[in-house]
Amino acid sequence: MSREIRLVAMEGIPIVEPGDDLAALHQQAAEQSGVRLRDGVLAVCQKIVSKAEGRVVSLAEVNPSPKARAIAREDGKDPRHVELVLRESRRIVRRGHGVLIAETHHGLVCANAGVDLSNAPGPDAAVLLPEDPDASARRLREGLIALGAGPLAVIVTDTFGRPWREGLVDVAIGCSGIAPIEDLRGTADLMGRELAVTTTATADQLAAAAGLLMRKSSGVPSVWIEGVPLEGDGSLRDTLRDPSRDLFR
Amino acid sequence: MSREIRLVAMEGIPIVEPGDDLAALHQQAAEQSGVRLRDGVLAVCQKIVSKAEGRVVSLAEVNPSPKARAIAREDGKDPRHVELVLRESRRIVRRGHGVLIAETHHGLVCANAGVDLSNAPGPDAAVLLPEDPDASARRLREGLIALGAGPLAVIVTDTFGRPWREGLVDVAIGCSGIAPIEDLRGTADLMGRELAVTTTATADQLAAAAGLLMRKSSGVPSVWIEGVPLEGDGSLRDTLRDPSRDLFR
Repeated sequence: MSREIRLVAMEGIPIVEPGDDLAALHQQAAEQSGVRLRDGVLAVCQKIVSKAEGRVVSLAEVNPSPKARAIAREDGKDPRHVELVLRESRRIVRRGHGVLIAETHHGLVCANAGVDLSNAPGPDAAVLLPEDPDASARRLREGLIALGAGPLAVIVTDTFGRPWREGLVDVAIGCSGIAPIEDLRGTADLMGRELAVTTTATADQLAAAAGLLMRKSSGVPSVWIEGVPLEGDGSLRDTLRDPSRDLFR
Repeated sequence: MSREIRLVAMEGIPIVEPGDDLAALHQQAAEQSGVRLRDGVLAVCQKIVSKAEGRVVSLAEVNPSPKARAIAREDGKDPRHVELVLRESRRIVRRGHGVLIAETHHGLVCANAGVDLSNAPGPDAAVLLPEDPDASARRLREGLIALGAGPLAVIVTDTFGRPWREGLVDVAIGCSGIAPIEDLRGTADLMGRELAVTTTATADQLAAAAGLLMRKSSGVPSVWIEGVPLEGDGSLRDTLRDPSRDLFR
């Protein structure tokens, strides 16, 4: 186990447009930032992944359903925004205090199903989550390896609120090249007692760490992390609790 | 804003006993780890703070109430453990699947009110959360400053589960010398649009980052973090959502 972890903000990534090659942009940014993309984890914020993948919708083209209009009226929201949230959701988990907590088609539970109006390209645009964030992470990882980088892992991160606690934290929504959950079950604690139920959400801890350098307005969409062992692999689905085992759904 | 963050595992902290001087232990560990405790954040896991403060209870001395016995019987738990959970709680938030989610007297919402049997000193012992984790952080910070360290911040961390997602993450439960929440409300995003509701849970992101080096069985109870601006101050209470504004309580 490493005794030291280093996080470096990737400099020089431009405003991303649909169709941009994220692997090439990150290779250039790595050179500019003095980073060698080897033996580490690249954390990339969802916003630039979604934009590169064209997951941007013009609100002017959204025709809200009666249900979206009703929710928007009650909650003081833009009905076109609510319509997109409903389209991206398979279930509304909670609604209240003007907040709409939804379960996305991926199984992520978050505000507004991740449909975001901030940092969208223009006042009339909304950015949706990637259709398959694991696949997004895998494509970027494979693209970087094809350019000579690696071994490396890629996580796609987003900024979520939480029950009970104020403030947003970054979590992983997609993952490639590292196990998102580290399973300590069956290993012993320092006293030799079995750690019966301990699993660590490694990908989420990596995302939160990267978030320290990714403040929304600072223009740092990606962070390179060294000192974390690249153990295992897996899908972010491993991090999503089965709704039947969840006490808050 | 820093472009780089460095985390270093503090080496050489022994098994902590009640009454131990955490400041002196950390000063020694810093020397051993090649760390200068200046311009950074010291993240310390709750377990050693609680032990130093004598927050250890022998289960043999706990007499469970009828309510604790009933819950323990239904959930397959040790009734003395449940009794301690009830004593440390002001409200049971959820119970099911053998999990007891409680709101502690501090206002933290977590499994078993933080009453932990793993890494406890002996098979018959339980470790409770510190009585006032902000005060614990403040005492350690002031102790280190008295020994010549600083400027620095201290956060006390614990490992919590979450709704909806598998795996545990480290969060802050006490804080001194840094604002636990960074308020971005009223600032502009990259497009000049106001970030209306964005606050970042800086202390929790720091805790999660430190957690990457604090795996339970590795014997690393403390992590030093450099590259994070020591802005503001505040209590971890700033991170606790008012129950009246919470959709999951």
